[in-house]
Amino acid sequence: MFKATIYVTLKESVLDPQGVAVQGTLHALGYQKVSDVRIGKRMEVLIEAKDRQEAEAQIAEICEKVLANPVIENFRFELEEVA
Amino acid sequence: MFKATIYVTLKESVLDPQGVAVQGTLHALGYQKVSDVRIGKRMEVLIEAKDRQEAEAQIAEICEKVLANPVIENFRFELEEVA
Repeated sequence: MFKATIYVTLKESVLDPQGVAVQGTLHALGYQKVSDVRIGKRMEVLIEAKDRQEAEAQIAEICEKVLANPVIENFRFELEEVA
Repeated sequence: MFKATIYVTLKESVLDPQGVAVQGTLHALGYQKVSDVRIGKRMEVLIEAKDRQEAEAQIAEICEKVLANPVIENFRFELEEVA
């Protein structure tokens, strides 16, 4: 069994409306010194696989096809063997 | 200037409906070997501060008061000095 920690982030060139909204809120609350707020996702998934290679291939496929939008997002992941 | 990378995750004891939904989708798409899908946020923020200590205090306060809900979420962050 492996645990994958997956990070999905917007590509640099893509505007981040959520980040802009959070930044506006922070400024309104007095945190004027913050800038460039970017929001992404962090996901954890347990996956059964016979070896690390199979786990890696499965997680990469899941990221490419389901969890990340390749047009506007990048993904990377870390794999850890668990129980 | 410092760059904070902030991770906000649901506490272990809290049900993750988003994670349950993603897991259902993955199973429906044939990825039966995945389980325990948990979804969190990864945020990047640039912050002006005179030193690391001030940056750390400001980011901790921002997380406690704005970015994370202390009742159901945990947060941690990494700080990196930039330009």
